[in-house]
Amino acid sequence: MTNWEKINEQAIQWIKEAGSKIRASFLQQLKIETKTNRNDLVTNMDKETEQFFIKKINEAYTDHRILGEEGFGDVVEDENGVIWVIDPIDGTMNFVHQQRNFAISIGIYEDGIGQLGYIYDVVHDELYHARKGFGAFLNDQRLSPLSEVEIEDAVIGVNALWVTDNHRINRHVLGPLVQNVRGTRSYGSAAMEIAYVASGRLDSYITMRLSPWDFAGGKVIVEEVGGVVTSLTGEPLTITSKSSVFISKPGLHQKISEKYLRSVELN
Amino acid sequence: MTNWEKINEQAIQWIKEAGSKIRASFLQQLKIETKTNRNDLVTNMDKETEQFFIKKINEAYTDHRILGEEGFGDVVEDENGVIWVIDPIDGTMNFVHQQRNFAISIGIYEDGIGQLGYIYDVVHDELYHARKGFGAFLNDQRLSPLSEVEIEDAVIGVNALWVTDNHRINRHVLGPLVQNVRGTRSYGSAAMEIAYVASGRLDSYITMRLSPWDFAGGKVIVEEVGGVVTSLTGEPLTITSKSSVFISKPGLHQKISEKYLRSVELN
Repeated sequence: MTNWEKINEQAIQWIKEAGSKIRASFLQQLKIETKTNRNDLVTNMDKETEQFFIKKINEAYTDHRILGEEGFGDVVEDENGVIWVIDPIDGTMNFVHQQRNFAISIGIYEDGIGQLGYIYDVVHDELYHARKGFGAFLNDQRLSPLSEVEIEDAVIGVNALWVTDNHRINRHVLGPLVQNVRGTRSYGSAAMEIAYVASGRLDSYITMRLSPWDFAGGKVIVEEVGGVVTSLTGEPLTITSKSSVFISKPGLHQKISEKYLRSVELN
Repeated sequence: MTNWEKINEQAIQWIKEAGSKIRASFLQQLKIETKTNRNDLVTNMDKETEQFFIKKINEAYTDHRILGEEGFGDVVEDENGVIWVIDPIDGTMNFVHQQRNFAISIGIYEDGIGQLGYIYDVVHDELYHARKGFGAFLNDQRLSPLSEVEIEDAVIGVNALWVTDNHRINRHVLGPLVQNVRGTRSYGSAAMEIAYVASGRLDSYITMRLSPWDFAGGKVIVEEVGGVVTSLTGEPLTITSKSSVFISKPGLHQKISEKYLRSVELN
């Protein structure tokens, strides 16, 4: 049987060690490249951090597979066995522009079920973490179960792009929601925004396109406090597919789905 | 002559003291009320913090006037003499929902000219401050002069509401800007977003309606690092009027004005 307690201890140790390396890198010159487009940034620290985790995991667990944003891990096309899903720096644009508001995100899944989740706000030394069935924590403090909230009193994470004319979603779907909630926020790191839902700072988070490494860690954490994690059309998220993402407090997830997303069509 | 050095020392001391009281309040139950509408929140801590500053200032400077968000100060209809412009908690919604991402904001003006500016991120103990002509600082670290950036490489602060159908600005004005920049962010505290421009974490910040206490402190700080502070139509901001606000790195301010805001009409 998989020893989750031991894996949890090691994962936290490696994450803290990687965080120290990232903090130390602020004093050095970053090497910044672009990937698929001008705004899809990657730095030497994204690559080095992913490689750091891969080395540690491969040494300790020869039968675990690794799905990483920067592509140094395995080609993962099924959910069998233990899979580490790693975003070494979620929010690379923030890392480059702000040196804050980014996170290390890791989810560890077994046969498709999330068992361990981590989101590490490196700059503020805040580690959100959860083990399935054992509760979620911010550092040593247990996170409270999420409470119900009305749409009109909700603060939600949504980027302005999704209410302009864009190629993924009709602006009339989320526009009325943006107008009816108490407020909207956008932080530029999916992992951080999911951690904000888990800790009650945001009531929902909606975005149009994430990869598994963006949500794998956060899904475990937010579900552990009763949050609901689906695509915009209500489908479950899997670590083998990209998806739209709608993460929310319980109750509010159903209210927003019924009132705004019932007939959503995504491109 | 006004002794700005002494005022600066005292202001910093009072701000730190007020911040301690706010941090201590996290352990107590907040009293939350609404003001002009359901989403216009005020807490006992907003009121108590403003009253704290007013007492200190009135005792030390009988001839100074005070313009405060919560209305405990003076009725200020002209810019004559020394005026403290105070937002005891900028980002009250964040204060209530998140216990972070809010700030104490203070600008001290003489005959309409900003002489001292403060934005205090209470939770992270980060004080952005500036004295006109003496540079701007984050705690003890001097902030660098802002550099030039292209529109396509810029990360700007703008709330999603302003690109939906709203009653202040046609969505076609800022929509194309949102689509053309590298990314947008929204933090829900004008003072924090102005501090982010001053420290280079955002390249611009645009919003449709601020009161003087929202921008008075930030204007002094961001101008001290070469940022440009105007309304959306390019008018200077004064501490006697509400206004739209467009704060930006130099160069970028002109580029965005010319390309997107040339014919803007505001309601």
